[in-house]
Amino acid sequence: MKLTILRNELNDAIQHVSKAVATRTTIPILSGIKLDASPAGVTLTASDTDISIQSFIPLETSNKTIATVIRSGSVVLTAKFFVEIVKKLPHEEVHIEVGDRFQTLITSGATEIQLVGLDPEEFPVLPTIQEDQVVSIPGDLLRDMIRQTVFAVTTNESTPILTGVLWNLQEGIYKFVATDRHRLASRSAPVELYDVRFSNIVISGKTLNELAKIVPDQNVMVDIVVAENQVLFKLGNVLFYSRMLDGTYPDTSKIIPQSFKTELVLNTKALSDSIDRAYLLSREEKTNIVRLMTTDNGGIEISSSSSELGKVTEQLTVTEMRGEPLKIAFNSKYMLDVLKVIDSDELFIGFNGAMSPIIIRPNDHENSLHLILPYRTTN
Amino acid sequence: MKLTILRNELNDAIQHVSKAVATRTTIPILSGIKLDASPAGVTLTASDTDISIQSFIPLETSNKTIATVIRSGSVVLTAKFFVEIVKKLPHEEVHIEVGDRFQTLITSGATEIQLVGLDPEEFPVLPTIQEDQVVSIPGDLLRDMIRQTVFAVTTNESTPILTGVLWNLQEGIYKFVATDRHRLASRSAPVELYDVRFSNIVISGKTLNELAKIVPDQNVMVDIVVAENQVLFKLGNVLFYSRMLDGTYPDTSKIIPQSFKTELVLNTKALSDSIDRAYLLSREEKTNIVRLMTTDNGGIEISSSSSELGKVTEQLTVTEMRGEPLKIAFNSKYMLDVLKVIDSDELFIGFNGAMSPIIIRPNDHENSLHLILPYRTTN
Repeated sequence: MKLTILRNELNDAIQHVSKAVATRTTIPILSGIKLDASPAGVTLTASDTDISIQSFIPLETSNKTIATVIRSGSVVLTAKFFVEIVKKLPHEEVHIEVGDRFQTLITSGATEIQLVGLDPEEFPVLPTIQEDQVVSIPGDLLRDMIRQTVFAVTTNESTPILTGVLWNLQEGIYKFVATDRHRLASRSAPVELYDVRFSNIVISGKTLNELAKIVPDQNVMVDIVVAENQVLFKLGNVLFYSRMLDGTYPDTSKIIPQSFKTELVLNTKALSDSIDRAYLLSREEKTNIVRLMTTDNGGIEISSSSSELGKVTEQLTVTEMRGEPLKIAFNSKYMLDVLKVIDSDELFIGFNGAMSPIIIRPNDHENSLHLILPYRTTN
Repeated sequence: MKLTILRNELNDAIQHVSKAVATRTTIPILSGIKLDASPAGVTLTASDTDISIQSFIPLETSNKTIATVIRSGSVVLTAKFFVEIVKKLPHEEVHIEVGDRFQTLITSGATEIQLVGLDPEEFPVLPTIQEDQVVSIPGDLLRDMIRQTVFAVTTNESTPILTGVLWNLQEGIYKFVATDRHRLASRSAPVELYDVRFSNIVISGKTLNELAKIVPDQNVMVDIVVAENQVLFKLGNVLFYSRMLDGTYPDTSKIIPQSFKTELVLNTKALSDSIDRAYLLSREEKTNIVRLMTTDNGGIEISSSSSELGKVTEQLTVTEMRGEPLKIAFNSKYMLDVLKVIDSDELFIGFNGAMSPIIIRPNDHENSLHLILPYRTTN
């Protein structure tokens, strides 16, 4: 392998694939990045076997030569140092040449780097995926759907299926659900392909966080290919492969109440600021418990207390209130997580007494739905 | 105590003094901030007994009322929650009222906070300092002098005196020195007061880092008052008190060579970039060892190697080279620390062979001097 490539384009590709490099592994090859040079272009691949990312660098784009491949070939370079050094190379042109026993010489300006390369034959082969089930959705929407659900997955590895986000696609509605048994977040969006449908696909929350980082800011379409136990995301020149989580996701549809004894409509930011202040005090108690109470004048009161420090009490006006008076306690951190991702100025909150789930959704649309279990307290 | 005060001005004062709040203490009063309201204004104080910071809020500045004191008095409030909540209060006006047993009521907009207050009589009394020895220096210069020396203090508590920066003021030259026995950083500057002189004053590096954070960005003068075992920094409405470290600082003047066998003059940024790349590889070996070698063509070569990863070699041209050929190894992290703070485009480096200290200073002035001991290696 022998090639010349522009530093910035090489660095961009490295940054993309580096998210799949195994950081804690006893298998040295997995801590590397594979480079393949062919007459078509240069391909970088990294894989920790759960996720694999491949980035393709074409030889040229409109009027600009990015890479010149003098001799095709492959090598695997240990990622840790390679990722750091490329962005600091002194010249915009980088020459890479692989010699005997994968010894790799990288030169740029007056800098010369000799790296011990590894045999590319040992590198894991990417899964072959049949492209029967393909959904295209805007990158922005995918990022939003991830952001609005992934925070609710559990970090507790004793229920591995709940560390993932459930995907369903039925009758043109694409839906994400996440729950850690104390709360639930769901987000749905219409997609234009009616002949694709799937259910019980669960993708690790960690993987989705990594994916969200490499979805480009520009509004591009992401193709999502669903195969037997793998999902492939196609983002322009970047391919992102992820395993699905094994197991059956619990049925959460039955725990969502359809009617409420108390209903509130109120300003999202006002509630968020108010709960944030009460949270600050509740945090000192480690419990994060905040109370919400309807008041006689048709508003609500938010409060929290700490035996050592004192008490915070907040009066809040609401846009609408319907139904019974209410007094309820909940984990304010869970509520703040929801209020952070709800993309609507006004929100609806439904209650069925102090012991039943709290439902929060935007007041003007039904694409998001959040559930929080109350904290069961007697006073 | 009963007063009304503007949130932002209260918050600024809290941010200043909070740096002196004791974070790990078994004495509850030290984890608090003391508020004193008098007809002259409002004073906030925090102290961990090593450092104490006091910030004074006047009742008004040019045409603007900042605070109205309705009833004088004092209280101590636990810092942790107080620091967080004040910046998040909903209204720009904050009312504070202290009741029985120091119960404190803070109201702002529709937010009401009841805090358990502590008895201000238990709060440490600030040292009384005689203002005989006062030096005035520009805040920018003080911050530079700290930044250019403090990184070289030791973090090893077995030699407590070396965790501080040595100050000397002799014949109108104010000098800072720091060393951890492997390297030394010194910075001097002329000051205008010739009748003040002191020596062997050592201030903790941690304290100086905290001080640097509250020296304002605008070019204001800082008054430094040196007393028996305390130093007081006056920064406008903020007073910063620090204990001196006990003990005698070692005499470092004899280890600075006055002549060199090899001398280099070269571009600071070019050397810094080059060593940074070699450092990246040396870091993987945990040793940080980088080699510098003069070359036959009158330049230098910077290199490092890792048994597992490979080798980096850099060719560098220099502005001037005088004296004997040289081959030396050193800790690249120490060299990068120096190159980060040297405020000159070109620097001078003097050597006396592979086993003797390396001296680095700006090429165009002698206000800074850095020393690094070489790594003694045989190859």
